Amino acid sequence: VAKNVRVVVCGFGRVGRNFARLVEFKHRLVASRYSLTLDILGVAELNDSVLSTGPIPPSELVNYFEAHGNFLNYPRFGITGWEGIDIIREIKEADVLVETTPTDIQTGEPALSHIRAALSRGMHVVSANKGPFIRSYKILKSLADSKGVSLKFSAAAAAALPTLDVAQTCLAGAKIHTIEGILNGTSNFILSRMRTGDEDYEMALAEAQRLGIAESNPALDVEGYDTANKLALIANVAMEANILPEQINRVGIVNIVAGEVRQAAAEGKIMRLLGRAVVDKSNKVNACVAPQLLPMNHPLAGVDGSEKGITFTTDSMDRVTVAGGKSDPKGAAAAILKDILNIYRPS
Amino acid sequence: VAKNVRVVVCGFGRVGRNFARLVEFKHRLVASRYSLTLDILGVAELNDSVLSTGPIPPSELVNYFEAHGNFLNYPRFGITGWEGIDIIREIKEADVLVETTPTDIQTGEPALSHIRAALSRGMHVVSANKGPFIRSYKILKSLADSKGVSLKFSAAAAAALPTLDVAQTCLAGAKIHTIEGILNGTSNFILSRMRTGDEDYEMALAEAQRLGIAESNPALDVEGYDTANKLALIANVAMEANILPEQINRVGIVNIVAGEVRQAAAEGKIMRLLGRAVVDKSNKVNACVAPQLLPMNHPLAGVDGSEKGITFTTDSMDRVTVAGGKSDPKGAAAAILKDILNIYRPS
Repeated sequence: VAKNVRVVVCGFGRVGRNFARLVEFKHRLVASRYSLTLDILGVAELNDSVLSTGPIPPSELVNYFEAHGNFLNYPRFGITGWEGIDIIREIKEADVLVETTPTDIQTGEPALSHIRAALSRGMHVVSANKGPFIRSYKILKSLADSKGVSLKFSAAAAAALPTLDVAQTCLAGAKIHTIEGILNGTSNFILSRMRTGDEDYEMALAEAQRLGIAESNPALDVEGYDTANKLALIANVAMEANILPEQINRVGIVNIVAGEVRQAAAEGKIMRLLGRAVVDKSNKVNACVAPQLLPMNHPLAGVDGSEKGITFTTDSMDRVTVAGGKSDPKGAAAAILKDILNIYRPS
Repeated sequence: VAKNVRVVVCGFGRVGRNFARLVEFKHRLVASRYSLTLDILGVAELNDSVLSTGPIPPSELVNYFEAHGNFLNYPRFGITGWEGIDIIREIKEADVLVETTPTDIQTGEPALSHIRAALSRGMHVVSANKGPFIRSYKILKSLADSKGVSLKFSAAAAAALPTLDVAQTCLAGAKIHTIEGILNGTSNFILSRMRTGDEDYEMALAEAQRLGIAESNPALDVEGYDTANKLALIANVAMEANILPEQINRVGIVNIVAGEVRQAAAEGKIMRLLGRAVVDKSNKVNACVAPQLLPMNHPLAGVDGSEKGITFTTDSMDRVTVAGGKSDPKGAAAAILKDILNIYRPS
């Protein structure tokens, strides 16, 4: 008999909607392999939400929202004026908050308040949102521990590329002393185009934008902010570090010249935008983000195009590298589903 | 306050002794990060064992065994004539069996009996031994499930390269439809030497033997048996397949000519001994082991020398590759420790 897991989703953008679609698509596999049924009881958006006492078919939620752009007149279960925090406070019982509101790296809000409220009520939290964990990971983790619930955010730390899982599960018991990561697919795509194509930085960026890989404002990606954000999240979990992104020495790829990239390639080296965190002898973690020339035998040298990858160097397990993983909203949705399943999966 | 985990070790070869050393070396980290203390209460060898009601300092066990080659006259706690099965049956209470006796791929014994007895008593089992799982994984897993205990064997499935963890945890909820693995470090070392050095197969093999990478009888490695064994283990867990190694079409590397490897390299292709398992449209798993020419952009192309790597291709997370990880008895010991910690670590 499958156990019912009651889920509330805050934020119904691309990640939230893809998660809802995935819940429907994976219904049978989740029941047969994990003996679980994920029931979406509520979805919160900006000023109007949906809340029911029973499961709402995910495709109905998605179709309605995509047709109307809001839940204002959602039949029977729509509640005008309610936001995420209202749903979390007022829902009778729920097991998991899925937090996919837009990220605010500075304040973490509104996700931070959602997560605090959910944890305080004894709900597990699975987040695709980096914001709350950049500044408040330790506080939120303590709160989760004190309530005996799980707090997971794989989707925020490189989507379907497993990073936190690898550090916490696959490398359990090992001391991670170095993390190196190609954590931003857009930058890696641009550098790869500059190497193999006939393109300079501007052309490669335009191509990335045309393909929907880069945003129209690419600063977050190409100036290394996104890499620094992810690196801080991962180091704070995997190394028990205490880094803020603004403390990370950060150089982006905007001043890289194509000739430089191709010259390096001719000499057998690959230019990558690398995030690196190293534990020094006094147990302090030093982190930086910068373009690096990797030798061809570096385990991240082959992580090409818009793929991502991460290398953990440890004491007792040597060096372990993970690469790939879907990185669009579908990949983030798959990472959310994974986190939920791992909360309930026996070890 | 750290919880005490009472451990019995069956088999005190290189893996078992390295595990004991690691328990001592990691004592503080395990206590501080995982709130656990691993107490080794007993060690079983062929005809003489050690069993105490309290923890025995691991280094005393290792030092004694390395000095004497047996436990015949081990002070106070030595028991002549007792083997693994006796310890498991007679110990008053224990939490985890660590099974590191020599592998018998055909019968799985003596590990199979040890594991059955331990699971039946409600002990968790962590094994470095492939044998019992090649033919009896499903039966043992059912037994473990019925007793509510864990059954883990990361060390048997490529030591510190995470394979089963990645499939079960990092890719939870995804359907894995293809597994490709460079699962044997010795073969990969030989092929790598044939490509980059001036060596033919015999010379590369001799070098591998000189370095202690290859055994004096290398058949298990170079004829693909080891790859087939690991592939079967991994596919049976990750794909819920039901493959026996002898059902896997298997070609080794003994007939590979160095000129062929170098010619391929000149054409931008890399020769690797690959294990591959694919789920076909009727949900049947087809597996084979054979030397393959990989294009340079294949995620396993860069897994060089004695390193190992594995690529999982999935429906909802795309392709995820893991590479590296210590593969000697120390790596196996680290994998055993990891499995134990993951049994007790909250999700």
